[in-house]
Amino acid sequence: MLEKRGLQFRPIDGGYTVDEIKHILWDGYTLKLLDQRLLPGKEQYRECKNFEDVCLSIKNMTVRGAPAIGVAAAFALVMAARDILEKYRGGKAAFSLTEFHQQLTAAADLLKKTRPTAVNLSWGAERILIKSRSCNKESPELIFKELEQEALSIYNEDIEINKKIGEWGSELIGNGFTILTHCNAGALATAGYGTALGIIRSAYYQGKKIKVFADETRPFLQGSRLTAWELQKEGIPVCVIVDSAAGYFINKGDIDCIIVGADRVALNGDVANKIGTYSLAVLAKENSIPFYVAAPLSTIDRQISSGKEIIVEERPPQEITHLKEMPLTPEGLSVRNPSFDITPARLISALITEYGIIHHPEENKMKEFLSKRRHPFCT
Amino acid sequence: MLEKRGLQFRPIDGGYTVDEIKHILWDGYTLKLLDQRLLPGKEQYRECKNFEDVCLSIKNMTVRGAPAIGVAAAFALVMAARDILEKYRGGKAAFSLTEFHQQLTAAADLLKKTRPTAVNLSWGAERILIKSRSCNKESPELIFKELEQEALSIYNEDIEINKKIGEWGSELIGNGFTILTHCNAGALATAGYGTALGIIRSAYYQGKKIKVFADETRPFLQGSRLTAWELQKEGIPVCVIVDSAAGYFINKGDIDCIIVGADRVALNGDVANKIGTYSLAVLAKENSIPFYVAAPLSTIDRQISSGKEIIVEERPPQEITHLKEMPLTPEGLSVRNPSFDITPARLISALITEYGIIHHPEENKMKEFLSKRRHPFCT
Repeated sequence: MLEKRGLQFRPIDGGYTVDEIKHILWDGYTLKLLDQRLLPGKEQYRECKNFEDVCLSIKNMTVRGAPAIGVAAAFALVMAARDILEKYRGGKAAFSLTEFHQQLTAAADLLKKTRPTAVNLSWGAERILIKSRSCNKESPELIFKELEQEALSIYNEDIEINKKIGEWGSELIGNGFTILTHCNAGALATAGYGTALGIIRSAYYQGKKIKVFADETRPFLQGSRLTAWELQKEGIPVCVIVDSAAGYFINKGDIDCIIVGADRVALNGDVANKIGTYSLAVLAKENSIPFYVAAPLSTIDRQISSGKEIIVEERPPQEITHLKEMPLTPEGLSVRNPSFDITPARLISALITEYGIIHHPEENKMKEFLSKRRHPFCT
Repeated sequence: MLEKRGLQFRPIDGGYTVDEIKHILWDGYTLKLLDQRLLPGKEQYRECKNFEDVCLSIKNMTVRGAPAIGVAAAFALVMAARDILEKYRGGKAAFSLTEFHQQLTAAADLLKKTRPTAVNLSWGAERILIKSRSCNKESPELIFKELEQEALSIYNEDIEINKKIGEWGSELIGNGFTILTHCNAGALATAGYGTALGIIRSAYYQGKKIKVFADETRPFLQGSRLTAWELQKEGIPVCVIVDSAAGYFINKGDIDCIIVGADRVALNGDVANKIGTYSLAVLAKENSIPFYVAAPLSTIDRQISSGKEIIVEERPPQEITHLKEMPLTPEGLSVRNPSFDITPARLISALITEYGIIHHPEENKMKEFLSKRRHPFCT
C-alpha cells in the first residue's frame, strides 16, 4: 500500500473531467500535475513523489487556482502521512499515533505557508488533519487508506460542487450574452469543470449562444494561456484582450456581465481574487452591468470578518521583469507584484455557491445563508 | 542642400534633451529614430532615409507617442518634399509649384493613415503643408530650406511647450506625492521632456520628493520598458506594476494622483489615450483622487465635438499573442487589440496645457479657453 502501485495514470475515478483536461492525476503513490506554467505551448506533467514536491508545485504555480490548490494540498498531506508512517511499517518501530499527528500537523503548517491568500489550501489540509485525528489505534496501512480516500473525496466533491455552481449560475446567463472573465477559474483551477468557467460551461451546454472575453491576466497570463486553452478545446467562443482593455469593451456596451472566481471570501462578502478583479468590479458599477463571483462554500473563510483582514500575497518581481528568461524591463528596476486584490461586497451583484445564489452579499445575508449550511468540514 | 550633408548626428540645436535621451536626430538628410521597440534591452537607432522609411517607423512603433509622431511626420514630409523637388534640381525640369503641392498633399494623406488616433500626426503634416503653400516662386532649394526650418521649429517648440506644461502641472504635485502614470508620455513620446512625465520632471527638479508608479502598459509595455527606462536614467524613483494592479494601490490609498498624456482631445474635453486610461479615470473617481491629463494644444482636435467621434485604432493581434517571436497563447486564438480608449471629460479633474490648466473640462470651458488662444497653426 505504501509502495508505488505501478498503476497507469488516469483521471481519478468518478470524477468529471472534460476529455482533454486531466490536470490532476493520482496513482496511489505519485501525484502528477499538468504544469500550468508551460501551457499552452507544452502539455507536460510534473511528477510529485513526495510532500515537498507538491509544496514546491503549489509555490511555483505548476498548479494554481484556489480549489485545485486545495485538492493538491490534500494529496500533499496524504504523501506526508505515507512517509511519516513508513518508519512504522512492518513493525519497524512501535506506532505512536500522537507522534504521527504531531508530525502531520507540522507538515500542514508548512503547506499553508506556500500560498497565503487561497483559503482552500488550509481547508484541504485541515480536512486531512481532521480525518487523521478521527483515526484510532488503526494500523499505519489503514490510516493511509483512509486519508487517501479523504483526498479522493475532496477531489470528487469539488467537481460535483462546481457542477452545482454551474447550474445555479447559468440561470443568470441570458441567451446571446457576452461574458467577461478574469484569470482562470476553470477546470485547471479546480479538480475539474471550474467555478466561473463552470457557469459558462453550463450555460453553453444548455444551448445558450454565448461568447467569452478573457482578460489575459498579467503577469502569469492565466487568461490568455489557460482560460483561452480550456475554452478553445471545448469550442466555446473566446476572445482574449489585455487587462486594461476591459473598461473599453464594458463602456462600449459589449459586455453583458462579468464572472470571476475567488481565492477567499470574508464573512461580510468581501472577496479576495486575482489582481485586477477589484478594477473590474468598479468598472461594472460605473457602467451598470452585473458583477458575479463564483465560489464554493470552502472558499468562505469563517475566521475572517472583512476583506481588510485578508493577507495579500506579493509574488517575485521576476514575474513582471521577465517573461520566461527574457528581460522586459531595465535592470535593477523596482517592482511591486501583489497577486490578489480585495473587492468589497458592495460591488458584488451576486455570490454564486453550490447551495445557491446570494444576491448583493453583505454580513447579515452571509450569516443567514451560512447558518443553514453545515460547515464544509462536517459534510 | 538636397545632398546628405555628412554632419554628425546630434540632438537638434537649441532643443532640451536629457543627456541620455536623444531619440530624434536630424542631419539635414536622414532622420535617425531610437528604436523604441528594442528598448530597454538595446539602444539602437533606425535610419530613415526617405518618406517611406518614416511612415513605416510610425506604423510599426519604432517611434510612438502623439507629439513625437507629430515631429516625425513633419520630417517625413520634409523628406517627401526633398525627393519631389529632386527632379527639378539644377533645372532638370521646369519647376511647377502646383504639381509640387499636389504631390506633397498626396504624401501627407498617406502619412495620416499610418496611425489613425493621434491627432498630432495630422497636425505635424498640416504645418508643413501650410508652410509649403506659403512658398511662392521660390527655388526648390529655398522651399526645402523653409520646410526643414518649419520641422525644426515644430521640434523645438514641442520641447518648450512640454516645459510649460511641466511648470503648470507641477503646481498640482505636492511634496511627498506618489503619482501613477500609464504608458509613456515622456521624452520618448515627444521631442523631449515629455507631457505627463514633463510634469513629474518639473516637480522633481523643484526638489519635491516624489515617487512614480508606472503601469507596465500591455501589450507594447511602454510603461515597464520606456517610462521605467527614462525615469531610471534620471534617478526619479519609479516602481512598475501590472496594469490591473493600479486599482489595488489606488484603493489602498498609496496613490495621490494620476497623470497621463493624450493622443487626441475632443472639443468637449473627452480624451483618447492609451488603452487602460479610461479604467484609471473610473478608479480615480471611485476612490476620490485627482485624474490629470497633460496635453499640448496641438492635441485638441477642433474638428471633433466629442469622444464618440474619435476613431480607435485596433492594432495587430500579434502584439497580444506573441512577445517578440515567443507565442503566449494557443494557436488560432481570437484577439481584440484596441490601442486607445476614450475617457469622458466628466472623469477628468484637470487638463494641463502649455497655456494653463482647465479644471473639470467641459464644452463651455474648453471653448472659452480655446477662444483666447490662437490656433496652433497660426503661432
